[in-house]
Amino acid sequence: MKATVMYKAGDVRIENVPDARVINPSDALVRVTRACICGSDLWPYKAMEQSETGVVMGHEAIGVVEDVGEDVRKIKRGDFVIMPFAWSDGTCEFCADGLQTACIHGGFFGNAEVAGAQAEAVRIPLADGTLFSLPVAKDDALMASLLTLSDVMGTGHHAAVTAKVAPGKTAAVVGDGAVGLCGVIAARRLGADQIIILGHHPDRIALAEEFGATDVVKERGAEAVERVLAITGGLGAHSVLECVGLEQSTATALGIVRAGGAVGRVGVPQDPTIPLGDESFYKNVTIAGGPAPVRAP
Amino acid sequence: MKATVMYKAGDVRIENVPDARVINPSDALVRVTRACICGSDLWPYKAMEQSETGVVMGHEAIGVVEDVGEDVRKIKRGDFVIMPFAWSDGTCEFCADGLQTACIHGGFFGNAEVAGAQAEAVRIPLADGTLFSLPVAKDDALMASLLTLSDVMGTGHHAAVTAKVAPGKTAAVVGDGAVGLCGVIAARRLGADQIIILGHHPDRIALAEEFGATDVVKERGAEAVERVLAITGGLGAHSVLECVGLEQSTATALGIVRAGGAVGRVGVPQDPTIPLGDESFYKNVTIAGGPAPVRAP
Repeated sequence: MKATVMYKAGDVRIENVPDARVINPSDALVRVTRACICGSDLWPYKAMEQSETGVVMGHEAIGVVEDVGEDVRKIKRGDFVIMPFAWSDGTCEFCADGLQTACIHGGFFGNAEVAGAQAEAVRIPLADGTLFSLPVAKDDALMASLLTLSDVMGTGHHAAVTAKVAPGKTAAVVGDGAVGLCGVIAARRLGADQIIILGHHPDRIALAEEFGATDVVKERGAEAVERVLAITGGLGAHSVLECVGLEQSTATALGIVRAGGAVGRVGVPQDPTIPLGDESFYKNVTIAGGPAPVRAP
Repeated sequence: MKATVMYKAGDVRIENVPDARVINPSDALVRVTRACICGSDLWPYKAMEQSETGVVMGHEAIGVVEDVGEDVRKIKRGDFVIMPFAWSDGTCEFCADGLQTACIHGGFFGNAEVAGAQAEAVRIPLADGTLFSLPVAKDDALMASLLTLSDVMGTGHHAAVTAKVAPGKTAAVVGDGAVGLCGVIAARRLGADQIIILGHHPDRIALAEEFGATDVVKERGAEAVERVLAITGGLGAHSVLECVGLEQSTATALGIVRAGGAVGRVGVPQDPTIPLGDESFYKNVTIAGGPAPVRAP
């Protein structure tokens, strides 16, 4: 089958690789109908060390179940499924708590052991816990939207939930990528009164406004902080959705959150430390978030 | 009057200073009956730059109101009061939300403008919002306990609340100082099932056990993390109370918290960044806390 293989930063090839297949009894084989590229794929694209074997990329896909292992009970051949970016058993205490991305037996797609989904087919470990079946035909007009449920929409929602977005509150979304835009949708769904998008791509900003953003901040760094404070009565936003993961974007998020507010981080961090930790302390800011449990029901 | 004046690291003197008095109409003058030294006083004691005038130290005291400004309505002469370590107006939106330490008109005692309470008397700004009157006589046997309500007990409670301690959960308390010990009391009050104290002072550990600690971890750093994991089924604690503020103690707190758990920080941070920010992200850890709103009703 064909798959997208990354060998090092900037070196991505479409190659013929051995067909994906069921290996363990709890596996399913999914024929991929749509897959996409994640913002987090950009990090290895910029920084990956040379790999002899390469890595099949991709952790966001939808498709049709083609085969299942003998222990698979809930998922059936022919099911149309969403594949979350992490696999999970659905039964451990973390899964029971709705944090499937911390599943004791779980993991993340797109590594040497479990190949990614930018391929004609993908092996899904722990299929009963991982996959989510939907009663739609594979040519449904909703396909592009359903694909977002494998990562970006669930991730934007997680940012909003961990940033404690609530009716009447001000939410600020740092980043106008796919996750940031989904964060705007999520903030609106959760009832935010004012939704500030921080970004500077005109096409994405237009989408953000269509999705419910009430204010646009195109500045960056200290100027962005100043601007957000100016449009929030000098106090900052109750809820900040950090949808980038860079040190500067995190500093911006922590700079624009008001005292007692919360930052929901979903951008994969590119630095081992969190900046402004002391300022966040004095402001009693809550810093939360992480890999979204997109599989949570 | 006599007061404790710090001039630089290691240079603390008991000196005669001008009598504290009502300056603004919203002030009260409190005759201090008991005051104490905070763990956070140790930071300037170790690192304060030379000051020409010195700073009157102290932000934890109880005493009797001796005078009030003309705008003070609730607090009366003769009231026995607890002085929280921060002053607050009691009316702004942060005070209304119970976050008096972010009061728009508030501040912290013990600086060049508002002297500290390790003195015979102390001027209290915004007395109606700041002071808490109690119906006790000043010779009450409870004095030592009441003094803890000016900071350490409220701070330990804030650590427990922001670490989301709840019935049936495991709480770990990093630090066996006064705040850590109050954190143990708070964790027990909030129903924690298992309470792990991390510390190595035998006398304080004995108190922690008396207050409800069920497990003691005397190790530090990586060994402490290993030990806590060992006694929590390899998963870590649901709630971690960080009651020190050093980089290592913060790293320990973030190392022993389980995925999806929360760290409540109340130790004044000695570093501008938070370590293990990426690990905390992958674990979906909530980092919260800050200066405790001890004035909250």
